[in-house]
Amino acid sequence: MNAVDLGLPVDVPSTALFTDQYELTMLRAALRGGTADRRSVFEVFTRRLPEGRRYGVVAGTGRVLDAVENFRFDQGVLEWLREREIADPETLDWLAGYRFRGDVWGYPEGEVYFPGSPVLRVEGSFAECVLLETVVLSILNHDSAIAAAASRMSSAAGGRRLIEMGARRTHELAAVASARAAYVGGFDSTSDLAAGFRYHIPTVGTSAHAFTLLHDTERDAFRAQVDSLGRGTTLLVDTYDVAEAVRAAVEIAGPELGAVRIDSGDLLLVAHRVRQQLDELGARDTRIVVTSDLDEYAIASLAAAPVDAYGVGTQLVTGSGHPTCSMVYKLVARAGSADQDAPLVPVAKKSMGAKSSRGGRKWAARRLDAYGVAEAEVVGTGPVPEELADRGLLVQLVKNGEVVGREPLEAARDRHIAARAALPMSALQLSRGEPVIPTEYV
Amino acid sequence: MNAVDLGLPVDVPSTALFTDQYELTMLRAALRGGTADRRSVFEVFTRRLPEGRRYGVVAGTGRVLDAVENFRFDQGVLEWLREREIADPETLDWLAGYRFRGDVWGYPEGEVYFPGSPVLRVEGSFAECVLLETVVLSILNHDSAIAAAASRMSSAAGGRRLIEMGARRTHELAAVASARAAYVGGFDSTSDLAAGFRYHIPTVGTSAHAFTLLHDTERDAFRAQVDSLGRGTTLLVDTYDVAEAVRAAVEIAGPELGAVRIDSGDLLLVAHRVRQQLDELGARDTRIVVTSDLDEYAIASLAAAPVDAYGVGTQLVTGSGHPTCSMVYKLVARAGSADQDAPLVPVAKKSMGAKSSRGGRKWAARRLDAYGVAEAEVVGTGPVPEELADRGLLVQLVKNGEVVGREPLEAARDRHIAARAALPMSALQLSRGEPVIPTEYV
Repeated sequence: MNAVDLGLPVDVPSTALFTDQYELTMLRAALRGGTADRRSVFEVFTRRLPEGRRYGVVAGTGRVLDAVENFRFDQGVLEWLREREIADPETLDWLAGYRFRGDVWGYPEGEVYFPGSPVLRVEGSFAECVLLETVVLSILNHDSAIAAAASRMSSAAGGRRLIEMGARRTHELAAVASARAAYVGGFDSTSDLAAGFRYHIPTVGTSAHAFTLLHDTERDAFRAQVDSLGRGTTLLVDTYDVAEAVRAAVEIAGPELGAVRIDSGDLLLVAHRVRQQLDELGARDTRIVVTSDLDEYAIASLAAAPVDAYGVGTQLVTGSGHPTCSMVYKLVARAGSADQDAPLVPVAKKSMGAKSSRGGRKWAARRLDAYGVAEAEVVGTGPVPEELADRGLLVQLVKNGEVVGREPLEAARDRHIAARAALPMSALQLSRGEPVIPTEYV
Repeated sequence: MNAVDLGLPVDVPSTALFTDQYELTMLRAALRGGTADRRSVFEVFTRRLPEGRRYGVVAGTGRVLDAVENFRFDQGVLEWLREREIADPETLDWLAGYRFRGDVWGYPEGEVYFPGSPVLRVEGSFAECVLLETVVLSILNHDSAIAAAASRMSSAAGGRRLIEMGARRTHELAAVASARAAYVGGFDSTSDLAAGFRYHIPTVGTSAHAFTLLHDTERDAFRAQVDSLGRGTTLLVDTYDVAEAVRAAVEIAGPELGAVRIDSGDLLLVAHRVRQQLDELGARDTRIVVTSDLDEYAIASLAAAPVDAYGVGTQLVTGSGHPTCSMVYKLVARAGSADQDAPLVPVAKKSMGAKSSRGGRKWAARRLDAYGVAEAEVVGTGPVPEELADRGLLVQLVKNGEVVGREPLEAARDRHIAARAALPMSALQLSRGEPVIPTEYV
């Protein structure tokens, strides 16, 4: 395969290459040293939330399941690893037969998380688990960062509709994952066709300034758009003079005009003026969509403005200041021999300060108060206390290599809304704060 | 095609879906209205650099060429567009035969840019050009943001080696593009196997803390790694006690030990201590690699430390505070009719404030002073002044739909180093500043 000639950004034969080289060299050394088959438990967690954030949102779980299922080394990849001397013959043989055959447990997608929450647990031989580190983290760190921003925006928007339109501001495939994560976080639709195609998310979009500029007059452009897309379309009214454009829009489409879009200027002021003008022209049902560099704060500041929908781009796909999470994938327990019955021994890095971790295979549960409001994230390695028995957070996602945790994206979206609603009210404050509930280790 | 069942993150049939819906609805309205064939010029530029940055770096151009070449609508996509009623029959017919047949000019990859620089110019019919907006911007905005961060890091690192290792902190395919952009910006290698496979970038990596923890003792782990990977390998020495680990490492591998890696603690202090210890143990050629949450400032602060290589993750793939650029794709000129000889008319959005743009098809040149140092970015729409005739920045990348501007990645990397070296010295200051040369419109 001549990668340079093919050139498609989608030209990656399997998820197995979304891997840092050290995973293969560790595998090689473990195979040689006889430790590769030791039963092992890896956990994904974060030591802290992004600064000032009050909760995190698990997103990407469904994509992790896809990635694990498709993680395999085909002939072209094996040949390349051989040529580059990344893998020796023994390792190549082992990789040729690779399929993940272990178990994965995790927080279901859309659930909220806190520092120390074991959002994913991967169990199997050291060899089969160590290979998944990079792809698992890539997906969870990216998607959860976007979903967290989306959740803040959707809570700021109240019931108003939110359109994801950030594709142009991020990598073309990160855009697809971002639209998906935004949907989990409470967005209603996306401008990104690939996301609509791939994940069945509703897509929207009508026209840009270029369309107006293509025509000899703004009226020509509006007429062409209404002729083609119908009166229910959204006309972009800020290419020249907004008031003049609104007048022309209603004249051409009539009061049945679906919506107008404002993409520049003082949105608060302009939205009020446009609403008044639309009402005066009898277009009382024509909606107003605003779309200019919005983030959760701008959305909140427009709460009193007559806005019907927000289109959000840059700040959504860049996680509104936090484009990644700091989730890590750590070995927390392993057997002392390759014997499948050998007991698991908790392990943890013990070196300097902030990067230490807690050993042992963990469970997690969310303790609620008498009113059903979350009170603490409880994480433990011993037996689960009886009062938390039915509040466990981890569900099985993969069993003996078989994906058992797939679900429709709607389920994750609904779960997120419910999980967020069960947090203390202060979770929804946009200001900088601490995690809204503490993590207790028992 | 059942997208839910397939599930691969690479499951996107062509680059044509990396498109915002409004591009298709504009096409539909333009086809209906008879304006689709008007000759048009779109330009990509940015109104400002990320705050505090002194120059930008063009990256992703090669990927744009791949995307344009592969932009086509296959049967499955057309069927989906029909079902979702995004395109009407006339539009679907038109899309079925789509191949970009126009011209693309642009700054060659690796070149630096400033506010207003026309980094890409796309010319053809309105219909064929308008469809490329999103994919072009996704690629350039993402890749240029990463390359700009990489460039600052590589200038801070002086001649020391830089390893890109951020895959786990960004979307799995954004990671591949990031490794590529980092290489353009001056990095030497990547941990990401997909980037090595796809773009032939050198890959590196040896082991993580998990490998040490897998073994009963750190010495067991070191021995297994050296047995398998040889004495030239890099041993990770901060799982437990660093001094003890360094002693064990040299004992096991001998003074031929390739390198030790430090991933936590006060890197300045620890690097000095480790260097002294290695020297005392006779391992004078053993290198020191550091890898803990580095950015360009941390790299600069380690200039006096005995460090041989830096591994950079999070801050690189998130653009060191600026994960995206603000490049836009704007119609700047178009004909007044579908007649191929009709003259081009400059067009520009005239609405409120900051979002106005300059009409007209532009050239750009970099004026140098008597010493060959860049003095101004000159952008114009009229004839090129004679003294700038051989300083033009735009090169032809696509001619009548044929890609003519492909080049090896090394060429872009070399070009960046040369372009950066021709900027005023203050360009390399890491502190916040203004664009290091002004943009002059003539």
